[in-house]
Amino acid sequence: MPASQRISAVEVTPVAFRDLPLLNSVGVHEPFAIRAIVEVRTDEGLTGLGETYGDSLHLDRLRRAAELVAGADVWDLNGLARRVRTSLEGDTGSGGHGMAGMVTSSSTADTVLSPFEVACLDIQGKATGLPVSSLLGGAVRDRVEYSAYLFYKWAGHPGAEPDAWGAALDPDGIVTQAKRMIADFGFSAIKLKGGVFEPDAEIAAVEALAEAFPGHPLRLDPNGAWTPRTSIRVGRRLDGILEYLEDPTSGIAGMAEVARAVPMPLATNMCVVGFADLEPGIRQDAVRVVLSDHHFWGGLHRSRLLAGICETFGMSLSMHSNSHLGVSLAAMTHLAAATPDLTYACDTHWPWKDPEEDVVRPGVLTFAEGAVAVPTTPGLGVELDRDKLGALHEQYLRSGIRRRDDTGYMKRIDPGYELVKPRW
Amino acid sequence: MPASQRISAVEVTPVAFRDLPLLNSVGVHEPFAIRAIVEVRTDEGLTGLGETYGDSLHLDRLRRAAELVAGADVWDLNGLARRVRTSLEGDTGSGGHGMAGMVTSSSTADTVLSPFEVACLDIQGKATGLPVSSLLGGAVRDRVEYSAYLFYKWAGHPGAEPDAWGAALDPDGIVTQAKRMIADFGFSAIKLKGGVFEPDAEIAAVEALAEAFPGHPLRLDPNGAWTPRTSIRVGRRLDGILEYLEDPTSGIAGMAEVARAVPMPLATNMCVVGFADLEPGIRQDAVRVVLSDHHFWGGLHRSRLLAGICETFGMSLSMHSNSHLGVSLAAMTHLAAATPDLTYACDTHWPWKDPEEDVVRPGVLTFAEGAVAVPTTPGLGVELDRDKLGALHEQYLRSGIRRRDDTGYMKRIDPGYELVKPRW
Repeated sequence: MPASQRISAVEVTPVAFRDLPLLNSVGVHEPFAIRAIVEVRTDEGLTGLGETYGDSLHLDRLRRAAELVAGADVWDLNGLARRVRTSLEGDTGSGGHGMAGMVTSSSTADTVLSPFEVACLDIQGKATGLPVSSLLGGAVRDRVEYSAYLFYKWAGHPGAEPDAWGAALDPDGIVTQAKRMIADFGFSAIKLKGGVFEPDAEIAAVEALAEAFPGHPLRLDPNGAWTPRTSIRVGRRLDGILEYLEDPTSGIAGMAEVARAVPMPLATNMCVVGFADLEPGIRQDAVRVVLSDHHFWGGLHRSRLLAGICETFGMSLSMHSNSHLGVSLAAMTHLAAATPDLTYACDTHWPWKDPEEDVVRPGVLTFAEGAVAVPTTPGLGVELDRDKLGALHEQYLRSGIRRRDDTGYMKRIDPGYELVKPRW
Repeated sequence: MPASQRISAVEVTPVAFRDLPLLNSVGVHEPFAIRAIVEVRTDEGLTGLGETYGDSLHLDRLRRAAELVAGADVWDLNGLARRVRTSLEGDTGSGGHGMAGMVTSSSTADTVLSPFEVACLDIQGKATGLPVSSLLGGAVRDRVEYSAYLFYKWAGHPGAEPDAWGAALDPDGIVTQAKRMIADFGFSAIKLKGGVFEPDAEIAAVEALAEAFPGHPLRLDPNGAWTPRTSIRVGRRLDGILEYLEDPTSGIAGMAEVARAVPMPLATNMCVVGFADLEPGIRQDAVRVVLSDHHFWGGLHRSRLLAGICETFGMSLSMHSNSHLGVSLAAMTHLAAATPDLTYACDTHWPWKDPEEDVVRPGVLTFAEGAVAVPTTPGLGVELDRDKLGALHEQYLRSGIRRRDDTGYMKRIDPGYELVKPRW
C-alpha cells in the first residue's frame, strides 16, 4: 500500500455521552458532554480518526474545512493547515471550542486543524505500519502517566438518582473521591478542580489530600477564580504542598504578578493557550508550566512544537484535558509518549466517563498503576465501533445540547447563580 | 519493505574537495574544503546519507556516536538524539564544527546529531516512497531559491595558477563576479561576504551591486568584524539598499545595540546558533532574521522547530551555508521546501565548487533561475557515487587538512596577518 494517500472523504459526527455534575468556576457539567468524531477516508481505502469539541459553531467550521481538505495528501500537513485556514476566511467569530468560557483566546485555526491532523497521522501510521508515537519522533516511554482529576460534585444531576460517585462538597468528600479513583486507576498525581468554594475551603481540601496521600504530587486549579492578591495568599499557604498551582488568576499580567510572589510554579491552560500567547507569556515570566492540549494547539505536531518552545525557554510541560472519548485518549497518549519533556502526569477526565460509552472498541486503552500503555499497533491503535458511534450520535440528537454551557445549566438549577470572575 | 528499520552499520568518510581563495573576516579558504559523508545502513538493506563538517575532532565524535546509534530504529529520532548525547558524555571540548572560529557557541550535541538524523530521514523516505519534504510536513514550494554568495577573493591560491573566477578585490571585481554568477545560475538575491576590507570599501561594493542589479535583494555579512559603532554607521549608510545586515558585530548585546539604531533587519548565524541562544536573543531583541543551518541546529526536524520558534516570536528565517557537497544541498532544499516561513533565498557556496567534484551522482540538483527543483523521489533523492566518494577521500588523505583553519592558512601566506575582532 502506498504511504502517500489522498483524502477522498471526511465525515464529522457529533456525539454525546453521559457526564456527571462536576462543579467548576463557571458552573456545572451538564448531563451530557458533546464531542465530534472526525473520520477521514483516503483514495486507498484507509480511515483515520480525530476527536474534537462538539459545539455547533465548531461543527460548522469542521464541516466547511472538511470540504476543502478533500484531495490533500495525508503527509502534506502544511497543505492541510493551509486548507483549514482558507476554510475559515471571513470567519471572525470566537468561541466554539467547547471549554465553557474558561478559555477564550485559543486559535480557531489550530482548533479546527487538530482533528484532521490527528486523523492524517492515524492514516500515515496505518499506511506505514507505524504507531503514531513513531511518526512523532519515537516513544520515550512505553506507558503514559495520568493524574487523578478530582472535582467537587453534587450527588447526582438535579432530578436524577445519585450517581455512583456520590457527592464531594468538602474535604472529606474529596478525599473519599480520591481514594476511590486511586484504588480504581492507580494514579499517583492528584489534581483538584477548584474555584468552586471560597479559597479557605479549597485549601482545606488540598491539605486533607496531602495528609491522606503523602508523597503524591498535588495540583489545584481554580480556573482563574481568584484575584492576584487571593492567589498569592493561597499560593503561600500551600507552599511545599502543591507541585504546581494552575491558573489561580486570569490573564498573563495577573499570573506574572502571582508568579513573582508564590513559591511554587504556576501552570496554565488559560492564559497561554495559543502560539500568539507565548511571547507575552514568556516576556512577562507568567508561567513555568504550560498544559499542552493538542485539541487547541493545532494537533500533535504543533503540540510537539509547543514542547520544543517550552524546552527552549526553560518551561515545563503538562497536559490539559476536557471530557473526552477514546480517540482523544489515544492521541494524548501517543503525544505524551513521544514528548521527552512531558514529565508531569497528564490530566484526563477518563474516570468520569461511563466505561460503556465510547466510540472505540474496548481493550486497547486500559489504566494500570495510573498509566496507559502506549499502543504499538499502526496509527493511533484504536478502532471505531460504528454501532457505538451511531448510538452516541442518537444520544447527541436526543440530548438537545448544541454547545457546552456549564453556566447556563447552573443558572437553570440555581437562578441566583452569577458568573463572576474573579469571584474571590 | 517494512517502514520500521534498525540501523545496522554506519560509515563515516572524510572527503576533501577543491576550494578557492575566498576571503573572510578570519582569513582565507584553504585549497581544499573538508567534509564528512555519513552512510547509515539498516538491517533491511537500505542506506541513508548525511553530510557534515570534516574536522578531525568532529570526526572523532561522529565515530563515537556511530557506535552507539547502531540498533536504533530509523523512526526513533528521540532515541537517536539520546544515543548521540550519551556518546558525548564527558566530552567537554568545544569547536570541531568546521566554521573557522566564526561560530563558537553552537550545540555540539546538535551538530553531531545532524548527519545521523538526515540519514535516518533519507531511509524513512526510501522505506515509504516519500521524499524527505513530505516527512517534514509537505513541500510548500516545488523549487527553492538560493542567493548569489559573493566573496572577495584572490586570483588564485598563492603559488597556483589563477582560478576560473579570477580576483575580486574591489567594487568592480565584485560586480564582475556577481554578473558571472547570476548569468550562470540565475540568482536574484545577492550576498556579499564582508569583513575583509575597511567598511567604506565594502559599502562601495554594495552600492556598486545595487547600481548594477537594481531590484535584486542585497545582503552584507562582515562576520562580526565591526564594533557596534561602526555597524551603526554602515547600517545607516546602507538604508534602503540592504534587505538585511548579517552579523555586523559579535554577541547578542552588541547586535541588540545595533538593531535599535539601524533601519534594516539584522540577521545572524553567529550570535543565535543554538537553542540556548534563543531566549537571550529574543529577550534582547538582537535579531529579526535567523539564518537556520541544519548542520548545527540538530538536523531537519530541529530546524523545523527553530522555524516554528521564529514564527512564534515574529522573527524571519533565512538559511546559512558553509562549503558543502550534494548531500547537504539536497537536505537544505527539502528543508526549505517544507518550511513555509523560509521566504528569503537561502545561502549556498555551491557555485564555488568544481562541478566535477561531488559525492552524489549528477542530474538531480540543478539550478535554474536561481532555484533548485525539490527532488520528488524517495528520501533525499540523491544517490552516492562510490567512485567519487573514494576519490574525494583519497584527496582528503593527500590534502593533509584535518581541520578548517582559514586564519592559519592566511598567516602562512601573510605572516603579518593578525586575527582581530572587531577589526574596525
